[in-house]
Amino acid sequence: MNHMDRQIRVAILGCGTIGSELATFIDSDECQQAQVSALYDLDQSRSISLRNKLLSNPRVTESIEEILLDADVSLVIEAAGPDAIQSYSKDIVLAGKHLMVMSVGGLLHGDIYAELDSIASESGSQIFVPSGAVGGIDAIKACRDQLDVVILTTKKHPDTILDISVGNIKKDSDRKYPREIFYGTALDAVKRFPFNINVAATISLAGIGPIRTMVKIVADPQVSGNVHEIYASGSSGIMRFTMENIPHPENPRTSYMAILAAIETMKHSSGRGIRIGT
Amino acid sequence: MNHMDRQIRVAILGCGTIGSELATFIDSDECQQAQVSALYDLDQSRSISLRNKLLSNPRVTESIEEILLDADVSLVIEAAGPDAIQSYSKDIVLAGKHLMVMSVGGLLHGDIYAELDSIASESGSQIFVPSGAVGGIDAIKACRDQLDVVILTTKKHPDTILDISVGNIKKDSDRKYPREIFYGTALDAVKRFPFNINVAATISLAGIGPIRTMVKIVADPQVSGNVHEIYASGSSGIMRFTMENIPHPENPRTSYMAILAAIETMKHSSGRGIRIGT
Repeated sequence: MNHMDRQIRVAILGCGTIGSELATFIDSDECQQAQVSALYDLDQSRSISLRNKLLSNPRVTESIEEILLDADVSLVIEAAGPDAIQSYSKDIVLAGKHLMVMSVGGLLHGDIYAELDSIASESGSQIFVPSGAVGGIDAIKACRDQLDVVILTTKKHPDTILDISVGNIKKDSDRKYPREIFYGTALDAVKRFPFNINVAATISLAGIGPIRTMVKIVADPQVSGNVHEIYASGSSGIMRFTMENIPHPENPRTSYMAILAAIETMKHSSGRGIRIGT
Repeated sequence: MNHMDRQIRVAILGCGTIGSELATFIDSDECQQAQVSALYDLDQSRSISLRNKLLSNPRVTESIEEILLDADVSLVIEAAGPDAIQSYSKDIVLAGKHLMVMSVGGLLHGDIYAELDSIASESGSQIFVPSGAVGGIDAIKACRDQLDVVILTTKKHPDTILDISVGNIKKDSDRKYPREIFYGTALDAVKRFPFNINVAATISLAGIGPIRTMVKIVADPQVSGNVHEIYASGSSGIMRFTMENIPHPENPRTSYMAILAAIETMKHSSGRGIRIGT
C-alpha cells in the first residue's frame, strides 16, 4: 500500500501503436509522476522516430539488456508482443524493475505466470496487467472462486483476424458471414490468434484459468471495431459484459480502449489519494 | 507502488453483515497479511458478538476516537453507513490511517470526496473504494474522459427498497409491477435511497460524476437478488454491463458480491506479485 517514486523512469519495449501512445501520454503534462527514459524496438528506426516526438529525449537502446542494466529505469512497459514476454519478462523482474504487460497472451505459455508471480512476490517488484479492451475484470476476479462458467465471444472484421494456423482470414465472397471461426479454451485461442485475443488471456487469468475459460471468435464483416461479450455465472450470480470498441485509427487490431486502460493503470500505480475500483 | 506492511492491523467500523463478513475473512487462514485489531459499533453488543467469533481477539472500542488514537491500527474499514463517512472519514485519514469505504454514497455529500482525495494525496494514506456489487468500474474509469452517457438501471424486490422520502416500498397489490420508482441523477438517488444505491455512487465517482450519471430504480417483485444494468457510451465505444447478484442470506439489501469485491481489494492492497485489472 505505497507508491512508486514520484518520478518513475519508464522504459518502453516496442514502439508500435501501443508503445507510442503510452510514451506520448507519459510525456504529456497530464502525467506528472513519470517520464520516458528509454526506448527499445527491434526496428531501431521506430524508436528514433518516437524519440523525436517526445519532450523528454529518452535514450534509444540497442538491446533489452541495456535497459535491464539501467539502474535509472524503474518500470518497463512491454508493448512488443507475446514473444517478448516469454523471452524477457523474468529478466525484467529479476533486475528489480516493475513491469506492465500489454501482450497478456504471452503469460499463458508454460509456467511463466506462476514463475513471474513468485519472483515478483519475493522481490517486491510489481507486475501490472491492465484490464485491456474489456470491462468487468474487476467483477470476475472478485467472484473468481464462485464462478463455474466464463465464456468470451469476440466478433471482429475478417480483415483484422490473424489466425496463425491459416494466415489472414480474408473476406471471401464464397463464405457466409458472420461465421464462427474458433471455439475452444482461452489457452488454445491465444496460441492460434496471438495478436487478437489478449482479452481472453486477461479474463482467464483474472477468473477461472486458461483451460476452463472458453472463447468463441466470430468473423463478421458488419463489425468495424471489436465486439467482446463476456458471460460468467456461478453461485454469486450471473454477469454479462458487452463492449463495442472503436478501433485505433492506426492499427485496427488494437482497441483504443486497451490503451486507455493501460494509462489508467499507470495513473493508479503511481498516484496517491482515492482509488476507485477493485 | 509499494505495499502495506505484511501484517496490517485493521479496525472495523460497523459490525453488521458487511463488517462481520470482512472481519471473518481477515481472521481466516486465507488472509495472511492482515489481522483484525479493533471493532466498533454504535450497538456494542454487536461488536462483542463479533469479537467472540474471531480468533484474533480484537479490542472492542467504545468510540471511533479510540481507534483514531490507536497507533497500531493502519487500515480502517468503514461498514457503518453513509453518516459515518461524513462524520469520520476525514479524521481517519488525518490520523494517518488507510481507509476502505463501503458506504460509498457518503462520499457524494458536499465537498467530502475532493477533501479526502486531497488529504490522502498529501499524507500518503490510501483510500480504497471497491467496485462493489457491479462489474465494469475498470472500463468506466479507463474511458472516463471519452464517455458522454452513463445510465445505471437497478431492479430490486419492493421489500428491499428503502426510499427515505416515503419509507419502505411495500408490495402493494393495487400497484402494477414492475414499476419505475425513480429516475434522476446519481446524486439524488443516493440522497433518497442511502441504503440501496452505493453502486450508483461508485459508478459516478469512477466515471462522469454524480450529476451527469443517471439512475433508474425499478421495483420488481419477480427479482429476488439485485439486478444492475450499466449502459455507457462515448467516443471509445459502447459498454453494457449486467449483473444479476445473489442477495446475502442475512441481509437481502446487500449483494454477496459487494463483500467479495471488498475482499479482493484488500488482497491486492496488501499483496505482492501480479496485479490483474485496471
